[in-house]
Amino acid sequence: MSRLRDLLPFLDWASAYSRRQAENDLLAAVIVTIMLVPQSLAYAMLAGLPPEVGLYASILPLVAYALFGTSRTLAVGPVAVVSLMTAAAAGQVAVGDGNHLEAAVALALLSGLILVAMSVLRLGFLANFLSHPVISGFISASGILIAASQARHLLGVTAGGDTLPEMLADLLPALPGTNPWTLAIGASSLVFLFWVRRRLKPLLVRAGLPPRPAEMLAKAGPVVAIALSIAAVVSLDLAAEGVRIVGAIPAGLPPFAFPSFHPDLWLALLPAAGLISLVGFVESASVAQTLAARRRQRIVPDRELMGLGAANLASAFSGGYPVTGGFARSVVNFDAGAETPMAGVFTAAGILAATLFLTPLFAYLPQAVLAATIIVAVLSLVDVAAMRRTFAYSKADFAAMAVTIVVVLLVGVEAGIVSGVGLSLLLFLYRTSRPHVAIVGQVPGTEHFRNVERHAVLTRPDLLSIRVDESLYFANARFLEDTVYDAVATRPELRNVVLMCPAVNMIDASALESLEAIAHRLSDAGVGFHLSEVKGPVMDALERSDFFDHFTGRVFLSQHEAASALAV
Amino acid sequence: MSRLRDLLPFLDWASAYSRRQAENDLLAAVIVTIMLVPQSLAYAMLAGLPPEVGLYASILPLVAYALFGTSRTLAVGPVAVVSLMTAAAAGQVAVGDGNHLEAAVALALLSGLILVAMSVLRLGFLANFLSHPVISGFISASGILIAASQARHLLGVTAGGDTLPEMLADLLPALPGTNPWTLAIGASSLVFLFWVRRRLKPLLVRAGLPPRPAEMLAKAGPVVAIALSIAAVVSLDLAAEGVRIVGAIPAGLPPFAFPSFHPDLWLALLPAAGLISLVGFVESASVAQTLAARRRQRIVPDRELMGLGAANLASAFSGGYPVTGGFARSVVNFDAGAETPMAGVFTAAGILAATLFLTPLFAYLPQAVLAATIIVAVLSLVDVAAMRRTFAYSKADFAAMAVTIVVVLLVGVEAGIVSGVGLSLLLFLYRTSRPHVAIVGQVPGTEHFRNVERHAVLTRPDLLSIRVDESLYFANARFLEDTVYDAVATRPELRNVVLMCPAVNMIDASALESLEAIAHRLSDAGVGFHLSEVKGPVMDALERSDFFDHFTGRVFLSQHEAASALAV
Repeated sequence: MSRLRDLLPFLDWASAYSRRQAENDLLAAVIVTIMLVPQSLAYAMLAGLPPEVGLYASILPLVAYALFGTSRTLAVGPVAVVSLMTAAAAGQVAVGDGNHLEAAVALALLSGLILVAMSVLRLGFLANFLSHPVISGFISASGILIAASQARHLLGVTAGGDTLPEMLADLLPALPGTNPWTLAIGASSLVFLFWVRRRLKPLLVRAGLPPRPAEMLAKAGPVVAIALSIAAVVSLDLAAEGVRIVGAIPAGLPPFAFPSFHPDLWLALLPAAGLISLVGFVESASVAQTLAARRRQRIVPDRELMGLGAANLASAFSGGYPVTGGFARSVVNFDAGAETPMAGVFTAAGILAATLFLTPLFAYLPQAVLAATIIVAVLSLVDVAAMRRTFAYSKADFAAMAVTIVVVLLVGVEAGIVSGVGLSLLLFLYRTSRPHVAIVGQVPGTEHFRNVERHAVLTRPDLLSIRVDESLYFANARFLEDTVYDAVATRPELRNVVLMCPAVNMIDASALESLEAIAHRLSDAGVGFHLSEVKGPVMDALERSDFFDHFTGRVFLSQHEAASALAV
Repeated sequence: MSRLRDLLPFLDWASAYSRRQAENDLLAAVIVTIMLVPQSLAYAMLAGLPPEVGLYASILPLVAYALFGTSRTLAVGPVAVVSLMTAAAAGQVAVGDGNHLEAAVALALLSGLILVAMSVLRLGFLANFLSHPVISGFISASGILIAASQARHLLGVTAGGDTLPEMLADLLPALPGTNPWTLAIGASSLVFLFWVRRRLKPLLVRAGLPPRPAEMLAKAGPVVAIALSIAAVVSLDLAAEGVRIVGAIPAGLPPFAFPSFHPDLWLALLPAAGLISLVGFVESASVAQTLAARRRQRIVPDRELMGLGAANLASAFSGGYPVTGGFARSVVNFDAGAETPMAGVFTAAGILAATLFLTPLFAYLPQAVLAATIIVAVLSLVDVAAMRRTFAYSKADFAAMAVTIVVVLLVGVEAGIVSGVGLSLLLFLYRTSRPHVAIVGQVPGTEHFRNVERHAVLTRPDLLSIRVDESLYFANARFLEDTVYDAVATRPELRNVVLMCPAVNMIDASALESLEAIAHRLSDAGVGFHLSEVKGPVMDALERSDFFDHFTGRVFLSQHEAASALAV
């Protein structure tokens, strides 16, 4: 039974679902639906897909996540960064428009399979490859890239490009063709939406509304912009003036179908699907964790993978594209009082209703308004404060972040994240490959040993005591050897070397061989090699190996004991 | 002046070069030359190159290393593993025989440039990517692959293949065509060489010879096999019986010339050249270090890169192929009494003399004898004991080793080393991503705090003390968050959490954000978050950041202080 609950987390809350919870979930679902309908259309446009695909991706995936996910309040669906990654990946393999949709559906399928596989194989730790600076840089750069890609919709011109230089090179010559009506609608939407985001809530609060309803009302800003712009397009017949509109959206149920089987296409999309899965998982898990912690609930990362995997598979089988847990919508869901994933099921029903009955209304929606919605949403992703903070704290972390940003903007999203991850691994190896090593001496009159460079301590020409402040593993094994050999080469009177290990939490096979090599070579040179203050678990591991079969030195419980025993 | 000495290490020893040193170096050079001439021919055959190319690679590179290298006794030249890697890389890009040589020369050039660049940019730490188990598995598997590739020469049949299954599939159908004379020569050489290697030295020692001359004499075994087999071929006219011989080797100076410029070829060879450089450097540096330590000398890894880079450039400009420091020949050089790199210069002169005057002698040398030399040399590379030891010590390290071996044998050398490195990085991240975390309590009547699972200690429902035994960085930042949130979620009476940091040597930007997130989320849940026993350098870094601008908890010098201050 507990295994079944592990697999189907909804059993936990569904059995005790109350009328009060249902009311709260329903209210939250209404608010999230109003927010999600225009966002779904906008992100589908960003992904280069027909608008209804965004709606499809906001129905079944929510139900699937409600069944398999462990967060009570996470709201899944299309999000900006994953939409951009989908556009980039599909654009690389697709030749026509039909192919683009097919590639997007295949990406959802592959992401779903990858996430489920990661859940089953407990590979959630792979997300640890993405360090915070890389993720943060990646999201900031994606925000800039997305905003730049929407400029053409605001201006009503035709332009393309996958990288920032390409977009600018394409956009600048097209500027003279700007459609004034489109620009007017786009610019006013942009100003209105920024005003709503920044100013409406304080205004409403000053007008006497409690903060939470004020926040909710402010989130409805895009709906107002959409309603006004549709009214303007219809009343002034702006479509005839060249204002591009969303156009007819087929009303009806999502097309439940198995994605078409194309091994070549799937193979070509696999790396992109892997990155989409990882990025989506990291973003989603971090949102889910933040919200769960606020109510002292918990999420299970490996089960979250299953929830997101199921959501993506559901998306693929209902004509959608990759989805993940979104930050803004989850916070709205949480703040609106959602108590269980049932809120997600209600939201799905709401979006299904919109897909069935409201799509004719959106036919006259100008693309410029959707573009303005996207720009306002993604510019908040650009986190300059995080860049400044990272720069101040660690140049190495900042380097990984900067490389990620520059490569995303100049080469592309996939290349950016791969370079960032590669560089952060390299830099980590570089840092731990030169751990802090101190030559220590005795504090006079005590049993304590301290760094000779920081304290006035006693040393002896026949005894060298070295303390390494890091676990010993392949990246620093050779450094350890170099350090010891260098120290020995410059001390002709040396008789004994003691390696102090109080900060060594692990010794891997490479470091073990280095220790054996050090012992062997020092012995060739007539110098004894000993260990002191080895931690319990490390000592256990050494004893399991044949290390002590050859080791001729001694292992001392304390450095003081070592110094006394090795007195000349 | 000291900078010049850094660049040209030979200034250190050349200025005080004595007659006694010259005599010692000359004797060592004679012995190494006798060993190196047949080896050079054999490894060139292994690399799929004309025999003289092996000789060329053993002349100028030795002089270049003598000028720029820091080891006093390292002997550079063609080695088995690098020859195999050259054959594989050149085989992938080359179509004809001429192309094969051109690709090999280009590999030497690229390796030289890469090694010099690594020296200048101080990238020697990149070699740390190659953990001992990966290197050891790689060399063992290469040994097996090389031995298998030589079987056809022992049998006198035509067969090919780049992987073990391909070689076997190619060899088995060709077995009926075995040349009996070739097999007789090959098998008897093999038996003789194994006997020399295992038995001759003890025999000579029992006959009254001191151990060192006995060792030297045993090393001359291949020369005896070569002389006898040449005599047999000439006297019995075995070439007419189908015994394949080395054939005419052009006598004369190496062809000093700039390698031909082919950007496409160079680009295609670049990854292979990178791997050859890394593998060669790791092998060479480990040999050089072993020998230097025995005489309490030291090598400088970043300068070693320069020495090997210069050797490879010299090889490329004199028609040779990639070279590195070899284990067997360096030990012979050392044991024969070489004192300075001048021994290498004398060896180069010896090989030059052989190239000018002795090549006609080798025309009738059967390829089967060279194959036997190679097989005897490489089978000693197969280190089954290391596999057993690694298996016993660490399953993770063994997994990386096993994958390297299997992929080298079944797919190829490059794929093998790349998979091994990738897996060892993954496994390392996996291990450090779940560091040892202990919930600690107070040892009754003391100020000490220990793991609740190992000791009978006192805990309080309002206070949770967690000790993390690892540096905090991107791979375990999320684990830390999960651990804390999980612990908090199951303790409703909790008021304060203290993170004990005595084993935290570093906190990177990702972990810093996690600490901020933990503090923020616990504060949302009404729980205080504090640190204790933070190390000096870590505290310095935290103070440089804006961490303490937001941190509302306290930092305690000791866990006891924390427990007292946070008493209810």
